[in-house]
Amino acid sequence: MPSEVAAKSFEPAPSPAAPHHIRLTSHTGGHGAIPIHWAAATATERGPVVGTTTKRSHRNVIGTHSGSYSIYRALAVASGALKASHKADLTNTAPTNVIGPYPQWSEPGRIVAMDPWGATVADVFANELAAGYDIRPTIAVTQAHVILPEVIEALQSGRLKADGRFLTAGGAAMVTKVAVEPVWFLPEVAKRFGCTEADLRRVLFEETGGMYPELVTRSDLEVFLPPIGGLTAYIFGNPRDLANPDIELTARVHDECNGSDVFGSDICTCRPYLTHAIEECIQGAQRGGVGLVSYFRKEGRALGEVTKFLVYNARKRQIGGDTADQYFARTECVAGVQDMRFQELMPDVLNWLGIRKIHRLVSMSNMKYDAITRAGIEVVQRINIPEGLIPADAQVEMDAKMAAGYFTPGAVPDAAELKKAKGRGLDA
Amino acid sequence: MPSEVAAKSFEPAPSPAAPHHIRLTSHTGGHGAIPIHWAAATATERGPVVGTTTKRSHRNVIGTHSGSYSIYRALAVASGALKASHKADLTNTAPTNVIGPYPQWSEPGRIVAMDPWGATVADVFANELAAGYDIRPTIAVTQAHVILPEVIEALQSGRLKADGRFLTAGGAAMVTKVAVEPVWFLPEVAKRFGCTEADLRRVLFEETGGMYPELVTRSDLEVFLPPIGGLTAYIFGNPRDLANPDIELTARVHDECNGSDVFGSDICTCRPYLTHAIEECIQGAQRGGVGLVSYFRKEGRALGEVTKFLVYNARKRQIGGDTADQYFARTECVAGVQDMRFQELMPDVLNWLGIRKIHRLVSMSNMKYDAITRAGIEVVQRINIPEGLIPADAQVEMDAKMAAGYFTPGAVPDAAELKKAKGRGLDA
Repeated sequence: MPSEVAAKSFEPAPSPAAPHHIRLTSHTGGHGAIPIHWAAATATERGPVVGTTTKRSHRNVIGTHSGSYSIYRALAVASGALKASHKADLTNTAPTNVIGPYPQWSEPGRIVAMDPWGATVADVFANELAAGYDIRPTIAVTQAHVILPEVIEALQSGRLKADGRFLTAGGAAMVTKVAVEPVWFLPEVAKRFGCTEADLRRVLFEETGGMYPELVTRSDLEVFLPPIGGLTAYIFGNPRDLANPDIELTARVHDECNGSDVFGSDICTCRPYLTHAIEECIQGAQRGGVGLVSYFRKEGRALGEVTKFLVYNARKRQIGGDTADQYFARTECVAGVQDMRFQELMPDVLNWLGIRKIHRLVSMSNMKYDAITRAGIEVVQRINIPEGLIPADAQVEMDAKMAAGYFTPGAVPDAAELKKAKGRGLDA
Repeated sequence: MPSEVAAKSFEPAPSPAAPHHIRLTSHTGGHGAIPIHWAAATATERGPVVGTTTKRSHRNVIGTHSGSYSIYRALAVASGALKASHKADLTNTAPTNVIGPYPQWSEPGRIVAMDPWGATVADVFANELAAGYDIRPTIAVTQAHVILPEVIEALQSGRLKADGRFLTAGGAAMVTKVAVEPVWFLPEVAKRFGCTEADLRRVLFEETGGMYPELVTRSDLEVFLPPIGGLTAYIFGNPRDLANPDIELTARVHDECNGSDVFGSDICTCRPYLTHAIEECIQGAQRGGVGLVSYFRKEGRALGEVTKFLVYNARKRQIGGDTADQYFARTECVAGVQDMRFQELMPDVLNWLGIRKIHRLVSMSNMKYDAITRAGIEVVQRINIPEGLIPADAQVEMDAKMAAGYFTPGAVPDAAELKKAKGRGLDA
């Protein structure tokens, strides 16, 4: 069944390392690959995730490391800048802070979209590394000082006070930050989406236009490294305190919105809500608690920015203007769904961090709230965005979301309110 | 050669739309697909890019739309939230501003990594859409108000003045913004990287762990929609003025850095340089010129954020501390290269916008400068980041880059200077 073809229609490849045959799909029964026992109690029993392209027989997953950036790695090899055989030298790269292990790491079905042992591969898989396996971290933990103009403004206006420990007089907040690449255990990911594993594999293959035939040919490979963005967790205070339900935890789970998060577009509340959450996290840490902002790479509701801008135009040009009652409909016309973010996999990072209780959840999203509580994490209180932080042009989104079930401590807009055009036209 | 397999090891799929057989790779000689003649003079002669998954026989590319987000589309289908047959309703989504066509669109080799006709598919391919082809925009153009705290600060301190046209008294800058998905014409992309097309295709397949066998089986398909992030162009002033070399153009080409661009990490100059560029663009527009910031999704030098954080740790833990003379070496140890951003494809968007001359390039990168001038675009002056905007911990990066050939109007640091530990340790 596995086919081999020579790329005969091309001129001979000049690269000295060029193989003469290209295997279109791998097959079972190779030797040297270490089995993965997902959710096993220890790293050794679990086994390492090996997505290397340097020694193919060692691979025990579908896909490869660094998500989308494997395409850039390919460009580096194609241009001669990188040897295909390069292995990462992990000297001095170990996490700055110990995270776990926590009981959640081996509870079945609790963590299905990241590798709990991904930060400590150099340590827990030292034997396998010494034996020549090219094992790469899928998580990195470091420390940083972050300086946001909104935090400086809060210092100046007295809403925040510098303490030299969590926040300096210059406005730098001290954080531990964690980058996480997606590692999907397909049988359990399928369960989260209510479909069979076979369906998930087939649809992943077909709806991407034929990416990774191994999704359908290699049912023995149960782990997939999808070429999508991951997440970054910013921790304010001691990361160990996240796992202590007696210590007050302020948390926001934020989905990327480049247009607002970086450029400050006034059509939505993304950056204002994010910086408000950071302010809440700093205050929480200063009260003896701990704060967490988890940033997920899901641009434009995971539809991407082209679709997002198409929807903006459709909203602002429709008859009757930009109204809350048509807010979700416009996305659905273009994209077929209102939202593709799917919060089903989001709580994994919370469970990885050992979280059992969120005292203050800085989010109004019912989808996020539902996903977190379904994942076995208690939520005590929800914090809405303060009125004064909502840009005028973002009121359409706010109204539409509150009417659709988003949390609000105030009044939910009625049908008449939703029909009012509150968004600017395109010429304004 | 094209293989068909049934996914026999799984239970029967319950979805009514489930096909019984899964084709692992397509084959040439299908009918219905419209040929693509890259760089043809008109849209009709060029032909549409069809990456649909709804009607396979119409496809004339490798890969599919929305880059990485096709994975989320697959989740939407797998969960039953989206019908696989959904076609986008493009009503009212057309660009808010006309871009081109410009002569560069059909100059051979000028634009190889995006579809110049990608914004206007509903217009230029109206006949093909009417005939049932599912053609999707790969570019979207809209208008926005962007409000950055740094711009408000510049207004308050008098560096910027509101004019109600380019900048409001409330600090909102008026922009046209353009989201662009990558569309690669493989024969010319290979040329940019100095390799054969066959090598590029093979390496793209192998270094991604076997993504898209069609890269090696379908040499007749010359266009690839890679699952990577694209770019967003923010235009300050009239987009048409970009193509007029007599009108002063201020421009920055910025590579994503989430840790600084969103969270304000002080280890680099990314956000300060970006907001300085926006300030320069607004001033330029107010002087009768036009401004452009193009934002490329290439996190962590296109190595991804996990690698980036590993490198941070290695830099700050090495013997001798965080010094400029080891700055690039630490990335090379972990990643095998100093940088994977490859500016070779970057100038395409500039050529797409009709740009022939950049009067003020807000960048110190020699790689970007070289790529732009090699692409036939004149650069008159380079604008460095003002000293006062460089965070203390970012001086290591600045020194290392200037020593490596980055533009500076000041002194280039010498060997002794490069050996001084200027970055903070991890405990500080």
